[in-house]
Amino acid sequence: MQHITIPKFSEKTANKVQEKLNSLAKVPGSLGQLEELCIRLAGIMDNEFPSFAKKSVVLFASDHNITLHGLSTAGQEVTEMQVRNFLRGGGTICAFARNANADLHIVDVGVKRDILDEPNLINKKIMHGANDFSKGFAMTREQAIASIQVGIDIARIEAKKGVSLLAAGEMGIGNTSPSSAITSVLTGTSVATVTGMGSGISPEKQREKRELLERGIALNKPNKHDGLDVLAKVGGPELGAMAGLMLGGAECRIPVVVDGFIAGAAAAIAVSLYPEVSQMLIGSHISKEPGHKILMDYINIPTYFDFGLRLGEGTGAVLLFPIIEASTRILKEMSTLEEMRKLYK
Amino acid sequence: MQHITIPKFSEKTANKVQEKLNSLAKVPGSLGQLEELCIRLAGIMDNEFPSFAKKSVVLFASDHNITLHGLSTAGQEVTEMQVRNFLRGGGTICAFARNANADLHIVDVGVKRDILDEPNLINKKIMHGANDFSKGFAMTREQAIASIQVGIDIARIEAKKGVSLLAAGEMGIGNTSPSSAITSVLTGTSVATVTGMGSGISPEKQREKRELLERGIALNKPNKHDGLDVLAKVGGPELGAMAGLMLGGAECRIPVVVDGFIAGAAAAIAVSLYPEVSQMLIGSHISKEPGHKILMDYINIPTYFDFGLRLGEGTGAVLLFPIIEASTRILKEMSTLEEMRKLYK
Repeated sequence: MQHITIPKFSEKTANKVQEKLNSLAKVPGSLGQLEELCIRLAGIMDNEFPSFAKKSVVLFASDHNITLHGLSTAGQEVTEMQVRNFLRGGGTICAFARNANADLHIVDVGVKRDILDEPNLINKKIMHGANDFSKGFAMTREQAIASIQVGIDIARIEAKKGVSLLAAGEMGIGNTSPSSAITSVLTGTSVATVTGMGSGISPEKQREKRELLERGIALNKPNKHDGLDVLAKVGGPELGAMAGLMLGGAECRIPVVVDGFIAGAAAAIAVSLYPEVSQMLIGSHISKEPGHKILMDYINIPTYFDFGLRLGEGTGAVLLFPIIEASTRILKEMSTLEEMRKLYK
Repeated sequence: MQHITIPKFSEKTANKVQEKLNSLAKVPGSLGQLEELCIRLAGIMDNEFPSFAKKSVVLFASDHNITLHGLSTAGQEVTEMQVRNFLRGGGTICAFARNANADLHIVDVGVKRDILDEPNLINKKIMHGANDFSKGFAMTREQAIASIQVGIDIARIEAKKGVSLLAAGEMGIGNTSPSSAITSVLTGTSVATVTGMGSGISPEKQREKRELLERGIALNKPNKHDGLDVLAKVGGPELGAMAGLMLGGAECRIPVVVDGFIAGAAAAIAVSLYPEVSQMLIGSHISKEPGHKILMDYINIPTYFDFGLRLGEGTGAVLLFPIIEASTRILKEMSTLEEMRKLYK
C-alpha cells in the first residue's frame, strides 16, 4: 500500500480555540459536548475558525457473497436497486444530504453485476461481490489495498474541490457480517458479543450468522496486528474504501464523520493501519448493533447522539453536519464577554 | 385569561404517515426515534407532508429579584447586556438560529430597566423584574395572565407570517429559581431534588438557594391544581410568555420545540392549563439541571439528545430544527420500496 502521511492533530490550535470559547458571551463550558466537538474540529483542521462551505457524503456500494447463506432479510439485488435509487435522489441518505447542503457521491466498489447505464455512478469496481469468507478469503491482499486506495483518491479529489467536511456512507446487503468479523478480530471480543440483528433477522438466523462468522475467522486466521490482513480475509471492498476515505481525509486535514456500525468497522481498519488517525475522525451516533459501542471505545472516538438508527448509508453521520456547523460558527459570530459588558451603560 | 382552543393531535394523519414511512425504500423502523418525531410532527400539524420553509425562535427576557440574594454567578445587569448583545447578533442563540435558517425575535417582558434605544427589541414589558418570591408573590395574577397573552399573541403573528416551526427561548439571570419552584410545586417533588447548580454556583450557595425556594413556596402557598396561581406566585413573566407561545403555537398547529429546564418549566405551566397541549409540543434535549428529566417525564414529552447543554436561550431547541427537517423531508423525497424494486431489471 502506498504510504500516506497523517498530519498531527494540532494541540496548539485546539488550546487556542478552548481559550476563545471561554472568552465568549456565555457561561464557560455551557455548550457541553458541542465545545469538545468544536475544539476537536479545530485541532483536526489546524484552523481556529473551521468553516464548512463545501461538504460531501461519499457512499461506497458492494455485495457480499456470505449473504448467500440467507443471513440477511434482503436479497443481494437490493444493493444494486438502492444504488440506482440513490442516483435518482430517492434514498434516505439523498434527502439527508440535501438537508445538510452536502454533495452525495455514489461509488461502486463491489456490486455483483456491472452497472453500465448510470452516468453519475463512480465506477471503481474492485470485484463483483466480496467472496464468501466462510469458504476462503473475502478479498486478496491486492484487492484490499486497491479498495483503500479508492477511498484515499476520492478524499484527495474532494479536498481539491474545497470540501472541508466528509462522511463515509455505504450500501451493501450483508455487510454487517464482515463488520462483525472485523470488530471481533480487531477488538478481541467474541463474535457472539458483537453480532446483532443486522437488517432485522430472527434469533435463529442470528445464531447461524454467529456460527458462520466464527467458522470464517477460524478458517482464514486473520492477523489482528495487520489491518490489511483482516480487511482482506474477513472484510469487503466498501469497508476498505471507507477506511481509505478516512485516511485520505485525515491526510488533507478534512474531518471525516463516522456513521454507524459498518463505518465504525472501517474506522477500526483505518486506525489499525495508522493509529494517529483516531484523533482525526469525528464520531456521530451510537447504533443499535451491539458491536458499535465496542468499536467506538476501541478506536477511542466520542459519539454525540443515539436516535436508535440502524439504517446505514451514512445517514447518522450527515445528521451531525448541522450540529458541527453550529458548534464552530460561534467562534466567528459571537461577541466576547468583554464586548458584551460594554453594552451596559 | 382569554380562553383558547387547542386542536386535537391528528391520530389519523399520524397513522397515515406511519404507513407511508413503512412503505419507503428502507428497513421499516430503521430511523428509530426520527420516525417517531416525524409522526408526531405530522399529527401536530395535521399534515402528511410537514415542511418548514419559515422558522422562528422567540426569546423572552426578564429579570428576577430573587437573584438579589446572590444566588446566581452573574449580576442582574447581564440580562440587559445579553438582550443588547442578541439584538446585535452576538449571542449563541443568534449563531444557532442563523445556522438553522430561523428568524430570531427578542421580547422584553420583564427586564429591570427600560430599554428604549433598541428599535428591534419587541417591548411587551409586564414589569421591571419579577418580585422576590421569598417575600411575596412573584407577579399578580393579572401580570401572569398578561405574560401568557404576550406569548399567545406572538405565536399568532408568527403563524400569519407562515412560520411552521417555533422554539421558545429565554434570557433571565436567576430564572432557574422560579423554574425549580414551579417544578417542585407542579410535580410534587422536593425542592432539594429539582434544584441544581444553575449558572454554576457552589454547594453552599445551592443549599441557600434551596432554603430560599422552600421558604418562598411555604409563604406563597401556590395551588398546584391552578397553573396560573403557580406561575404568578413563584414564576416570572418570561416563563408565562414561553407557556403562552406554546399554547398559541398549539392553537395554530405549529410545533413549538421545548429547550432546557426553564422552557420545560414553562411547558409544565402550559400543560397544567391545557393538558391536551402535551401532545402538541416537541422536546429537544435533556440538560444537566436535575429537575429537567422530572419535568419532561411529568409533561410526557420525549427528548432526543443530551449534549450536556446548560446555556438556555433556546439553543438546544434550535439545534433540533435541522433534525426535524431531515425527519420529515424523507416523506416527500424518498422512493417507496415498490418504486425502488422497479429499478432492477
